[in-house]
Formats: sequence, C-alpha cells, structure tokens
Amino acid sequence: MTTSTSSKKILVNDCTLRDGMHALGHQYSVEQMVAVARKLDEAKVDIVEVSHGDGLQGNSFNYGFSAHTEREYIEAVRAELKYARLAALLLPGIGTRADIDEAKAMGVDTIRVATHCTEADVARQHIEHGRKLGLDTVGFLMMAHMTPTAELVRQAKLMESYGAHCVYVTDSAGALLMEETREKVGALREALECQVGFHNHNNLGLGVANTIVAIEAGADRVDGSVAGMGAGAGNCPLEVLIAVCERTGIATGLELYPLIDCADQIVRPLQRRPVQTDGNALMLGYAGVYSSFLLHTERAAERFGVDPRDILVELGRRGMVGGQEDMILDVAMELKSR
Amino acid sequence: MTTSTSSKKILVNDCTLRDGMHALGHQYSVEQMVAVARKLDEAKVDIVEVSHGDGLQGNSFNYGFSAHTEREYIEAVRAELKYARLAALLLPGIGTRADIDEAKAMGVDTIRVATHCTEADVARQHIEHGRKLGLDTVGFLMMAHMTPTAELVRQAKLMESYGAHCVYVTDSAGALLMEETREKVGALREALECQVGFHNHNNLGLGVANTIVAIEAGADRVDGSVAGMGAGAGNCPLEVLIAVCERTGIATGLELYPLIDCADQIVRPLQRRPVQTDGNALMLGYAGVYSSFLLHTERAAERFGVDPRDILVELGRRGMVGGQEDMILDVAMELKSR
Repeated sequence: MTTSTSSKKILVNDCTLRDGMHALGHQYSVEQMVAVARKLDEAKVDIVEVSHGDGLQGNSFNYGFSAHTEREYIEAVRAELKYARLAALLLPGIGTRADIDEAKAMGVDTIRVATHCTEADVARQHIEHGRKLGLDTVGFLMMAHMTPTAELVRQAKLMESYGAHCVYVTDSAGALLMEETREKVGALREALECQVGFHNHNNLGLGVANTIVAIEAGADRVDGSVAGMGAGAGNCPLEVLIAVCERTGIATGLELYPLIDCADQIVRPLQRRPVQTDGNALMLGYAGVYSSFLLHTERAAERFGVDPRDILVELGRRGMVGGQEDMILDVAMELKSR
Repeated sequence: MTTSTSSKKILVNDCTLRDGMHALGHQYSVEQMVAVARKLDEAKVDIVEVSHGDGLQGNSFNYGFSAHTEREYIEAVRAELKYARLAALLLPGIGTRADIDEAKAMGVDTIRVATHCTEADVARQHIEHGRKLGLDTVGFLMMAHMTPTAELVRQAKLMESYGAHCVYVTDSAGALLMEETREKVGALREALECQVGFHNHNNLGLGVANTIVAIEAGADRVDGSVAGMGAGAGNCPLEVLIAVCERTGIATGLELYPLIDCADQIVRPLQRRPVQTDGNALMLGYAGVYSSFLLHTERAAERFGVDPRDILVELGRRGMVGGQEDMILDVAMELKSR
C-alpha cells in the first residue's frame, strides 16, 4: 500500500505551538515558543502553526487567556523560521477577516480556517479573503467523525469552491477508527482537485496509525505535534510519525533527531499535566467529544464533585461541539443535582 | 474488515504483572501486584500473567533481581483471581521444565514458552512438558520482525507440532508496521490449526493499531498491559485497546472502567520512569531492538557518557536479541573509545 505514496513528498504541519496551547492552558512563554520553533525549523518541518489553541482572537474569557498576545508569539516565531512557512488558525466567529489581514502583516504564510464539519459555509468569506490576500489557504472540517462521509465530501467541496488550497479531515475528538479514516480521507481525495489534509488526536491511541492510513488514502498534508503536545491525549506525535514514515518509505524530508530532542528536552518538561491517553483523554475519543474540552471538563468535575467521565459521556450524547464550552459547567451542575 | 471478526470472542492476556516488571526494574511489591490483579479480575480479563519480566527464574544477576520471589508473587495473585486464568512466562535456558512443574503446583493454568523467532526447536521439551501436565500451553516467537514471514510460519508450525494450543507473533521490539503485522499474523492464521496470538510494544506508537490489525487478520488471543506497563514504550495499553474494540464491534467481554481506574489510580502512579514513546523508546522500534534492553541501555549510556540512541542503533545493526544483555555494556564501552 505504501508504494503508491512513496514518491510523493508529504507536507507536514506542526501544531505544537497552536494545539499545544490547549495542553498548557495557553500559557507558553515567548522564549519557550522560540525554543520549539528553532528545533522545528532545524528539523525541516514544512509549516509551523502559531495561534491561541482556539485560533486568532481565542485569547478571551470563554476560551482562556493566553500568557502573551498573539502578536508577541507570532512575531517572535516569525523571526526564528528560516526554512518553515508560518501558519495561523482562525475559527470564524472567534476571529474575523480583519485578523487575517493582521496575520498576513505579521508574516503569516498559511491561514487555516476551521469550522464544524457541517458548517463549511460560514468559512466562505474567510477562505475567499485568504485567497485574495495571496495566502496559502486551508479549510479545516472539525469533528469529522460526526458526519457521514458523503456529507463530509459535500462540505469539503464547498471549501474548495471558496478557494481553499487544501481541505482537512479533522478528527478533533480523536474518535475515528482506521477504516473510517481511510474512507473519509479517500473520499475527499477522490472528490477534490485541491490538496487533502488530515489532523487528529491520540485519544484512542491511533494518532500515528490513522495518520499513516490517511497518507495511504491520499492525504497530501498531515499534522502532528512534538511529543503530541495538543488537546486531549494530544495530536499525532510528530517525532513518532516521522520515524514510522521513514520505516515505511513515506517521503517527508523531515529530520528525526531534532524532533526527538525537542520532544524530550523542551516540550515534555513543559507539560504540567502529561499529554497521554489516560482515562479522561481516552473517554474523549470513546465518547466522541472535542479534545479541547478536556481541561474544561476536569475543572468542572472537580468544582462540582462529579466523575469527569460522566460529563464526557453526556457531552458526547448531546453532540456538543467547539464553541459550546459554557455547556460543560451546565452538564456538570446537572449531574451533581441528579 | 471488522465484520468477519465481530462474532468471535477474542481472548485477552494481560502482561502488566510480567512485562510490566521490566518497567519497574522488577520491583513490584506483593501488595501492588494484588491490587492490580484485583482490578484485572473485576474487568474480566481472561488471562493474567505473573513472572519476572524475563520469565520464571529471571530473578538473577544478569536479568535483574526482583523485589520478591516468584512464589510470593504467584501465590498472592493466585489467591486473588476468581474469573481470570493465571499464566507464567518461561524462556528456555533461563527457566527449565522443573519450573513448569513448580508453576503448575502454584496454580498456574497457562505456560507461555518464549524463544527467539528462529529458535522454536529449543522450546520443544518445554511445550511438550506443558501439554503433558495438562496446562494451556503457548509458544511465543519473539522479535518477529527479524525473520521473513515464510520462516516465521515454519517456526510456528514447529511449536504447533510440539503441542502448543496457541502460537504468538511477538513484536518484542515494537518494530512491526501495520502491513507487516497483517502479513505475519494472517500467514500464521492460514497455516496453523491451533490458535494464533499477538503481543507487541508501543515503541512506534502502533501498539493499539497493530493489535486491531492482528485481530482483523485472525488473531485469537492478544496481549496488553494496563497503562501500557511493559518494557520500552510499553505494551499495547489494554484499556485503550478495549475502548477501541468496543467502538469497532470486536467482542472481548472485558469491562472498560475497572481498567481505566487501574491505569489511572494504581499503575501509572507506580511508574518511576513514565512508560511512553519518548526518544529512547522510539529508537527501540526504529532500530528494531528488544524492548527490555531500554533500561539496561540507559544505564550503560549514563555510565560511559555516550548517547543511548547510538547504542540502540548499534545493537540493532548487530542483530542483538534477548539473552545478550551483557553486550550492551560492551557496545557502550566501544562507542566511548571511538
């Protein structure tokens, strides 16, 4: 299966400094970001993403205040990158087109516009705007496990029609099984002219496997984070992915040892809460819940004295998606009063 | 692919109290073993394995002394199990037939006889003896990535001919890719009348994925450890595997929550060194080195002031296998003097 993919260079997008913000409650210091960015650039990562975990303007009461402003983070990392392109994430409704203008002015090359997997239409103006500005423009269909493949393809075609250079199957809950990943990525690859991407979380321990499956199914870009640094059980751990790609004969062009050094010496020591598939992170994947709900849920569980697993199962049952973070407290309160 | 396997009940063998010994330098207390065994039994694990990490009589200078005798561990766990069968591991040359007699007398139900993947013939007398004693008798072909599939099948047929009820593809280095797992397990399933098993390590982050692939390819028994507690990056994490099996429709009969509680509350707090796919553990899979060499290698690297990754790459290049632990120091010394 790998022979068909072995000649294509896969683009690698690192999320350590964006999705990884979730794992730290958005508290990276600028120096920490710079140290990570230096190693990523040395490892020849194609694209380095920097934003609040919930994208540009996520720095807020509802999504959590970050230690520094977006400008401070982005400008510091921009100055560090010699090889890699710089990306930022934007969730329409949290960020606006004006934020894309500002991102471009700060030297961002790639804008990634993320919506729930059935709401591509709200990304229209942002994707069109990114294209107009000459940015590498990506559409991100989040919580992709929640919608049938045919509908996901329809949504992806909308994003392509707005001008996206690449549309992602985004497994925000880390809930996709391998066959589901193969089916969804393969269907997008078949239906689209533009690139297809894949982003996931390790909540079911399938982070690396599903990314390999996605590449086999035709993905052109894949995401990972050093030491998995991301929401929930973390993203696909980038250094592990690159080792497996090397053994599999998938061409990425990335260098393994700087990534391992970055994971062991810089990123893992920063993790206040180990980023791993422990019980609550596993339950995200099992219940199909947005990975960035993990820390919110653990705080709510402690505050109301309820089992975080029960909160997660209930959030999954109700089909809660990103933007409904305030419902976590409501669910915890309800469970408490039962 | 999963529909064909969904009706078959998969037998689950837990290795937390055997392979997990490696992760603790063989220092479980009896009370810790009992606490884990109680949860495994509550979760309806089919088979619970208890032995020194390197099998019966591994308690020695070369393989590391354990905190208690085998008898103390086995008898304490035996008294705790109401549902699960009790297994012990034996590596011919470390343990002997007399140890199988003794294991049976202590209430062991399953004897697992492990050899390097090209040395099934040294297991003949032990497998025959296990059968003669009426034990559930398993052959374990270790470092399965090191030999071509046709030769692995030939070795497995030898173990079957000696009387094994089940023969394992054992990925001791955590080095198998998914297609390799599918090929090897599928070939054994095709060639043998007896059961086929699969045991692996998470060194390439594929612990859960490869176990699912093995089940799809026809495995009848699979191994896992709670929180992955095992050598190297650990075994397939059992609680994660069971969650994925449930979502996939694979019947195991195991209960998820007692496994999660055991992982979060009992096993992970015991880990002095987190059992995870960090740099050195990743290098085991990348270089194809026996997982239980990890701690030996880290100690040798520190003693001689060399990069543990360089030792692991050299051990892989030389094709070192279990039993050659003394070569680790030699390699470290050589690298130091270069």
